[in-house]
Amino acid sequence: MDAATTALTTLGQQAQQASYTLGLLSTKQKNAILLAMAQALIDQQAPILAANAKDLANPQIPAKFVDRLTLTSARLAEMATGLRQVAALPDPIGNVDRAWRNDAGLLIAKERVPLGVIGMIFEARPNVTVDAAGLCFKTGNAVILRGGKEALHSNQALVNVLQDVLQAADVDRHAIQLIQDTSHETAAAFMRLTDYVDVLIPRGSARLIQAVLTQATVPVIETGAGNCHVYVDQAAQLDMATKIIVNGKVQRPSVCNATEKVLIHRAVAADYLPTIIQALRDQGVEVRGDTATQAIVPDVVPATAADWATEYNDLIIAIKVVDSEADAIAHINRYNTQHSEAIVTDNYQAGKVFQQRVNAACVYINASTRFTDGFEFGFGAEIGISTQKLHARGPMGLNELTAYKYVIDGNGQVRQ
Amino acid sequence: MDAATTALTTLGQQAQQASYTLGLLSTKQKNAILLAMAQALIDQQAPILAANAKDLANPQIPAKFVDRLTLTSARLAEMATGLRQVAALPDPIGNVDRAWRNDAGLLIAKERVPLGVIGMIFEARPNVTVDAAGLCFKTGNAVILRGGKEALHSNQALVNVLQDVLQAADVDRHAIQLIQDTSHETAAAFMRLTDYVDVLIPRGSARLIQAVLTQATVPVIETGAGNCHVYVDQAAQLDMATKIIVNGKVQRPSVCNATEKVLIHRAVAADYLPTIIQALRDQGVEVRGDTATQAIVPDVVPATAADWATEYNDLIIAIKVVDSEADAIAHINRYNTQHSEAIVTDNYQAGKVFQQRVNAACVYINASTRFTDGFEFGFGAEIGISTQKLHARGPMGLNELTAYKYVIDGNGQVRQ
Repeated sequence: MDAATTALTTLGQQAQQASYTLGLLSTKQKNAILLAMAQALIDQQAPILAANAKDLANPQIPAKFVDRLTLTSARLAEMATGLRQVAALPDPIGNVDRAWRNDAGLLIAKERVPLGVIGMIFEARPNVTVDAAGLCFKTGNAVILRGGKEALHSNQALVNVLQDVLQAADVDRHAIQLIQDTSHETAAAFMRLTDYVDVLIPRGSARLIQAVLTQATVPVIETGAGNCHVYVDQAAQLDMATKIIVNGKVQRPSVCNATEKVLIHRAVAADYLPTIIQALRDQGVEVRGDTATQAIVPDVVPATAADWATEYNDLIIAIKVVDSEADAIAHINRYNTQHSEAIVTDNYQAGKVFQQRVNAACVYINASTRFTDGFEFGFGAEIGISTQKLHARGPMGLNELTAYKYVIDGNGQVRQ
Repeated sequence: MDAATTALTTLGQQAQQASYTLGLLSTKQKNAILLAMAQALIDQQAPILAANAKDLANPQIPAKFVDRLTLTSARLAEMATGLRQVAALPDPIGNVDRAWRNDAGLLIAKERVPLGVIGMIFEARPNVTVDAAGLCFKTGNAVILRGGKEALHSNQALVNVLQDVLQAADVDRHAIQLIQDTSHETAAAFMRLTDYVDVLIPRGSARLIQAVLTQATVPVIETGAGNCHVYVDQAAQLDMATKIIVNGKVQRPSVCNATEKVLIHRAVAADYLPTIIQALRDQGVEVRGDTATQAIVPDVVPATAADWATEYNDLIIAIKVVDSEADAIAHINRYNTQHSEAIVTDNYQAGKVFQQRVNAACVYINASTRFTDGFEFGFGAEIGISTQKLHARGPMGLNELTAYKYVIDGNGQVRQ
């Protein structure tokens, strides 16, 4: 065992031990601790802000990281509000999905339990530290956090505050732990800590998530990549299509549920392309187009083959003309990331076929892809948006941070 | 891309294409095809039995594989019966788990869909070929089968028969495919075919499953390892404990839900150990014991540290005396495989604490661990028993071979 793995093993054992006690806390106890954590972030902001200043003083921090890395009193207050919201949500732990008596007379109950130990791997965003810690704690999970190295001091200060609240409430402080060694070797060892970590949830760039998927032997929930399409059917209300496409692209272009591609049925392309391209340009969007689009609006940027698979996360969009709904669906299933896809149509059959055949977590008729979100879905929280099919798909709220166990009551039954 | 990966990529693409069409079949169509497959196994047994004879003629087959590898008319009839039973089960695809309207007025429905392409890796058991193909087909999943090399001719013959039934019904024959190249290189490439395979389910020995867990980048459902315990509490009915332990050990010792370990509360150890050890020996079981057990029954085989983590799958059991229920739970959580655990007790509190604190898929009060089984649970089928927490835990029936997707109906909603 190498040194990185040895250090992590201790941390993993502590997390696992803590997880056994977390599952026994009542909802009332957990909520009281979440509220105390919220208050502590406000009361103890001085050391947190001092640690954050140390991170920001690092001359090697890329300029684009500065905003997301910066903590202020207002941002700490936002984090505290987030924790209070989590405290107010219903607790899924202990819920019984269903219960039945089998032929042998056993009463079998499928009961929601914590996953156990959750590993979170993320970039230099200190807000993720508090957010993930709160969601995992509410669901009785121990969490091991591995944040970006640029935020190490901030994360340490935040975790210290949260751990002190745990300890004051007689809860094992190892329920929330931070990996202090931000080397790649330690990250790689963390991803293989199968004896102690039940699931890894990476949050961040496509590159980060790919690295985790490739290296991990711990089960991973893949999140966040979103190459989302809007298909404008020949039976679309075109003004509705424009609202949906513009909202999907410009309302928050950096996020995973932003619309990245538009497919337009050939029957409406000549009429509609000038309108939608103008509407997007009015919002500062760079529009790229395939050859059919170029033929109608010659000054679009020519789209290359690479465009169809690219998630821009920026004010850029690519448009392609398709011959049929079937072509649109085939294109989407080839290039999408199984996140969110939309059709705009007034044709009932076209809408239902699209919903059935498109392979994605969320498939919309006549609505913006931007709705794929735990809060918009009414979950009251979100740990990420899953783009895989196992365990959880789409927005993940508290329920998606649980597993189940069968608890079975007998009176001496043996198998025949 | 190496040659093994190139060949597999074609196979994966074909499976993915087939999966898109399978999701569109009606339950009635799928059931008719399953019944036709059952009939074809009986009608076309001659080429299947000839292929099987070729496998059995291989002089390198270990003697212990011969029985599980041998096909007969009776065994083909059993496989056919299995397919007919799967046809008779309710189809989970298209079920709506729940549907609601969100604040923006969108109607959101969480609908059951196939997982997509399932990869099965298993040993030289031709019955798994038919069983897995039937369960995957019923749930609209394409399947890629990689069976043990000793059964290759048998598996080819079986898959040919099933594919011909698909083709006769105008269904893509690539819905069921067999990997013909049984090299380790191809198996390793298969486990990394993330673009085309949605989930891998290994079925077989602990060694096989560990190999898959270590090498795979495709998400894996871990199945089958069972180091199951029975804890005899101080408040146990001892005659009930004996029935449960003997049933758990001897009714079918080779399977994963067999009882492998017994923990006995010190307060009843002196009274109970001679009885239970005699009862086990009467059934031909080798009894191993810790030092406390040896002190009471001196002629037990001394248990070593390795015993506590070992799944015997044989007529061997190890007994340990514990000081308390807490010690029993700690021992189980340290050494178990999260499969099935049981307490025998008449103390309500002891039973409920055990169910809550033991970390396993199935936790029994006063019943045999042998009940952890898809048929005993009333699922009507079983693809395996999951010992992980993500996605599925415990016996996996048809529902556990599905994912979900959110289908969302709007009328022009955009995000504020």
